[in-house]
Amino acid sequence: MEQDFSRYQQQFEKDHFAKNAGIKLVEAAPGYAKARMKISQKHLNSVGVLHGGALFTLADFTFAVASNTHGKVALAIDAEISFFKSISAGTLTAVAKEISLHSKLGTYLVDIFNEKGELLANFKGTVYRKNETHPFG
Amino acid sequence: MEQDFSRYQQQFEKDHFAKNAGIKLVEAAPGYAKARMKISQKHLNSVGVLHGGALFTLADFTFAVASNTHGKVALAIDAEISFFKSISAGTLTAVAKEISLHSKLGTYLVDIFNEKGELLANFKGTVYRKNETHPFG
Amino acid sequence: MEQDFSRYQQQFEKDHFAKNAGIKLVEAAPGYAKARMKISQKHLNSVGVLHGGALFTLADFTFAVASNTHGKVALAIDAEISFFKSISAGTLTAVAKEISLHSKLGTYLVDIFNEKGELLANFKGTVYRKNETHPFG
Amino acid sequence: MEQDFSRYQQQFEKDHFAKNAGIKLVEAAPGYAKARMKISQKHLNSVGVLHGGALFTLADFTFAVASNTHGKVALAIDAEISFFKSISAGTLTAVAKEISLHSKLGTYLVDIFNEKGELLANFKGTVYRKNETHPFG
Repeated sequence: MEQDFSRYQQQFEKDHFAKNAGIKLVEAAPGYAKARMKISQKHLNSVGVLHGGALFTLADFTFAVASNTHGKVALAIDAEISFFKSISAGTLTAVAKEISLHSKLGTYLVDIFNEKGELLANFKGTVYRKNETHPFG
Repeated sequence: MEQDFSRYQQQFEKDHFAKNAGIKLVEAAPGYAKARMKISQKHLNSVGVLHGGALFTLADFTFAVASNTHGKVALAIDAEISFFKSISAGTLTAVAKEISLHSKLGTYLVDIFNEKGELLANFKGTVYRKNETHPFG
Repeated sequence: MEQDFSRYQQQFEKDHFAKNAGIKLVEAAPGYAKARMKISQKHLNSVGVLHGGALFTLADFTFAVASNTHGKVALAIDAEISFFKSISAGTLTAVAKEISLHSKLGTYLVDIFNEKGELLANFKGTVYRKNETHPFG
Repeated sequence: MEQDFSRYQQQFEKDHFAKNAGIKLVEAAPGYAKARMKISQKHLNSVGVLHGGALFTLADFTFAVASNTHGKVALAIDAEISFFKSISAGTLTAVAKEISLHSKLGTYLVDIFNEKGELLANFKGTVYRKNETHPFG
């Protein structure tokens, strides 16, 4: 498991967009991932609150890790996110869990929490699973 | 209209997350907005293709402008995006259009195209409209 | 609680569309509801499997009960559903849980299971909460 | 085309759930469908307005026809709907259009209008396209 996590970490270190957003993978296991993002000025929108795109990126990253842990290349088909609270500071934690897995399709729910454990956003994403396997799979 | 556009531009220049992603507002009018983003390495994910978070951020930015053009502060309730094609280079154009507007709620569709006019993604977002007005409203 | 449940039941007995679909409310509490539907020929689509509209109606009914338990009239803004398995027979159970509640907005997740406890569909819905109260509120 | 339409009609006549809801297919062509539903008491919810499940069923039926016109069996993966206006009477028209088609996936937008042409709901659905072909394909 330790070994698996370090392989996922190595692979997802190469995610430029997530890296620029300061997103860090903290846990990963088959069908599961947890990531963190500390809010700073670069994540804010024009009215000084956390950008919906930053929240989505955190959720989407966690979803990408969770859906690619089974070895097969998984590509996002669609995703949706609900926003429950506006915030401007703090460290966010996103947790992705698999709720359905078939040969060709997989679906994941992601919850994003602040440090107090309040639910800030809820995300669902679905992937198409290709026949190709990951080098890290 | 010219004057309106420069006011929107001034306001949305302050969007740090969109600015870091290289997103530029190119048109805005009541219930409408168009924005562009040139793909570079910073937008790519761990397998070298455009990050879903970058596509979402472009759509979400355009949605935020379009939904805030009426003067009232509009906050995103939820959004969903469908991804149709993986790409790694080029300049994207997002176009947001209002499909419903009520006193408290508004809904917007956003299409994202590449330079050939191919539809890469389709987004829908809904806002809650507060009683507060924008300084630029 | 018993008394509350019988009030909800009385109110939702008047739901013609759900009644025609054979949907029965089995539990309800603040922010929560559970309902059942036994599949018969009338629920099938043109290829003989359970219609997506029937699954959605079961989820939507459960969502409507859960979101209206707080007394305020709650109207659906939007909803989405993911389908995981095609079925043609059996009794389905839908369980709705509140994941966010604000003065004006509320969001609910609904899971639909078959008798074996397999997840057949996952639904999310968001309501706008009016100032009016229900006679049964 | 006439011949195609009558084949689609024959196939979708067998949709029990849509038939019970009084839904009628009025047009169909590759990637496209139009259907109608006249609201009566059986479509209403417990507060006397059109049930979200009835609106979804109309949209879903139109989406099913449009996505199955290419001959391959198309199964819904997910769908979402936004509700813009509560109504209790009248005849609704739903129009489904294909916005993306790949070998394995297809995405469709459906608009639902009342007789005045007001947009009552907007729906998006995505299908997985199997290798099997329809007898009517």
